[in-house]
Amino acid sequence: METSKEMQMNNIPTKASQKFRNFPMVPRVVFGNGSFDQLGDILLTKRKSSDAPFIFLVDDVFENSNLHSRIPRIFSDQIIFISADEEPKTQQVDALVRKIKESYLEMPSGIVGIGGGTLLDLAKAVAILLNNTGSAADYQGWDLVHRESVYHVGIPTISGTGAEVSRTTVLLGPERKLGINSDYTTFDQVILDPELTKGVPKEQWFYTGMDCFIHCIESLNGTYLNAFSQSYGEKALDLCKEVFLDDLPDKESRNKLMMASWHGGMSIAYSQVGVAHAMSYGLGYQLGIKHGLGNCLVFQHLGEFYPEGVVIFDQMRNKHKIQLPKGICATLNDNDFETMISIAMGMEPLWENALGPNWKSVITPAKLRSIYRKI
Amino acid sequence: METSKEMQMNNIPTKASQKFRNFPMVPRVVFGNGSFDQLGDILLTKRKSSDAPFIFLVDDVFENSNLHSRIPRIFSDQIIFISADEEPKTQQVDALVRKIKESYLEMPSGIVGIGGGTLLDLAKAVAILLNNTGSAADYQGWDLVHRESVYHVGIPTISGTGAEVSRTTVLLGPERKLGINSDYTTFDQVILDPELTKGVPKEQWFYTGMDCFIHCIESLNGTYLNAFSQSYGEKALDLCKEVFLDDLPDKESRNKLMMASWHGGMSIAYSQVGVAHAMSYGLGYQLGIKHGLGNCLVFQHLGEFYPEGVVIFDQMRNKHKIQLPKGICATLNDNDFETMISIAMGMEPLWENALGPNWKSVITPAKLRSIYRKI
Repeated sequence: METSKEMQMNNIPTKASQKFRNFPMVPRVVFGNGSFDQLGDILLTKRKSSDAPFIFLVDDVFENSNLHSRIPRIFSDQIIFISADEEPKTQQVDALVRKIKESYLEMPSGIVGIGGGTLLDLAKAVAILLNNTGSAADYQGWDLVHRESVYHVGIPTISGTGAEVSRTTVLLGPERKLGINSDYTTFDQVILDPELTKGVPKEQWFYTGMDCFIHCIESLNGTYLNAFSQSYGEKALDLCKEVFLDDLPDKESRNKLMMASWHGGMSIAYSQVGVAHAMSYGLGYQLGIKHGLGNCLVFQHLGEFYPEGVVIFDQMRNKHKIQLPKGICATLNDNDFETMISIAMGMEPLWENALGPNWKSVITPAKLRSIYRKI
Repeated sequence: METSKEMQMNNIPTKASQKFRNFPMVPRVVFGNGSFDQLGDILLTKRKSSDAPFIFLVDDVFENSNLHSRIPRIFSDQIIFISADEEPKTQQVDALVRKIKESYLEMPSGIVGIGGGTLLDLAKAVAILLNNTGSAADYQGWDLVHRESVYHVGIPTISGTGAEVSRTTVLLGPERKLGINSDYTTFDQVILDPELTKGVPKEQWFYTGMDCFIHCIESLNGTYLNAFSQSYGEKALDLCKEVFLDDLPDKESRNKLMMASWHGGMSIAYSQVGVAHAMSYGLGYQLGIKHGLGNCLVFQHLGEFYPEGVVIFDQMRNKHKIQLPKGICATLNDNDFETMISIAMGMEPLWENALGPNWKSVITPAKLRSIYRKI
């Protein structure tokens, strides 16, 4: 298939094209502490044959953990442990797909992603690429996938990205950091087991939770918003406030953050993220900074665009004594800044959502550079 | 298939069996004022052949309306107008299925329900019975349907029942008023177009909206509740309060009530309704009283079970100057009361949700009779 820049440009969602989108929801969901153990029974009904394996893509922090031993591997199923230290990459997807195709005569029965946004996004992309030719990079954009993906299951082990419910998988490609946005991206099955988020380190918990908080602020303050997305965004925001500002018992806090992530992901259905995500994409591409942290690094300086949101963000940060790293952009040269700025400014729907069709009158390369310089 | 009472008893959901339910969500949803006009394009991709029609089951208030002319009927498609003056019945479903099967050589491409809870429930049940033998009454209960339904689309024209998103279709049968609760009941596609709710008469708007309000109160105060259902129930409740207690512009009010209905329906995923619904089922069976009104008639007298909810209900009723009918049960004899009480007490999961496993120590026939007598 052709994947010229023009085609992608044609598919970029505008407020108008987004308006009556026939939104794909996750058709099956299990919720509950301990619900992970339903996975075996769920997969059993989806096995095509004993030669068509399930491939489990699992965050490598779980290698030799209790969770590892609970993965219901049978027949020729395979567990592949993957580090989530770096953002997921198109080449990584291509390599995984090649490896899986070389290892088996039959197409897998399905892909199961177990981990945070990185693992969930990899699982979605591998499921797509197993059934679509070429490289993952060919499908970065909007609605470029034309053949359905193989059955895929998402099991989040950290809350906030919304990757478990969204129709995108955001990948770092050779040319850009951009999602494969398509109806075939959405998981066929999700298991929401808040217990799995028990051991998450505090900083990671905060940064990933803030991904949810920030995309709710962006969605609720965006020009794309309608009543559908608003209702989900408001609920996710309420839950984030409970989790990060109140003093909830641990279990309740885990439950609520998992639901915040879910509703936050849904709030993007008819909406979009905004300034923080656009600029965070630049940081991710240029410096490999992980998405949640990147959002926080940018968002702290966005009082001009999201005044109330930034005040609440500061309260949350102070309450949990989170020190954001400083001087991230100190050593960058002009070329680096230009690349970051070009990546960020390329996210047109995000800017249009944040600031309306005339966003270019506000957002200039100089403006973005001045914000990046503070980081 | 066998549908003995025992089988049904075995499938009655308990708090334990409900715990890790793999919940089916509507896999496709469109939201927006004017989104009804997407229906033609959506159906086009689902047509099996020009001889496999779409059957539109439509509330007869729309006969010769503007909406009638916008229904995208082509080939041998058929529009069947149905009165929603009475609760949907199993015999009505059976008759519709017979009529459709006699009229066409091929199985329909799908069923489209356009209307309130009655029409949506009929559409769901017809879609199931087209692919399953016997009578609709055979499937009243929990998880008795074993063959998937034909493709079916739900388009609500009044907000509150949650029928657009739930996995049940509640029918009045020869022996009982009870839902066909199954994974095959859920719609394959929903179109949420708040504009369609424009001409709803005030009383109907209120009673149907209160269906949502009341099942949120029941769900949030139930013993089955988990964090998944709670988050949806809280959002639906917030939206109901905005709609019925604040002074929103009409369009915003319609948008928000449609989302309240959606989230309210989802809040039942891992939960259940309670006292008002159980007793309203009795009124529906014995007197044919419609579900929304029946809930209100019961709920006003439930201060003992839902003290805060009844206070808010009274505020809403006063604000909108709604006079509930009186003396409904005045002419009933002992036999009538016994039937109603037996129907209501048969709704075991609802009572267990409302009052816990020892509900029978609180709820006796005499207790229910004393409440019914006030109505």
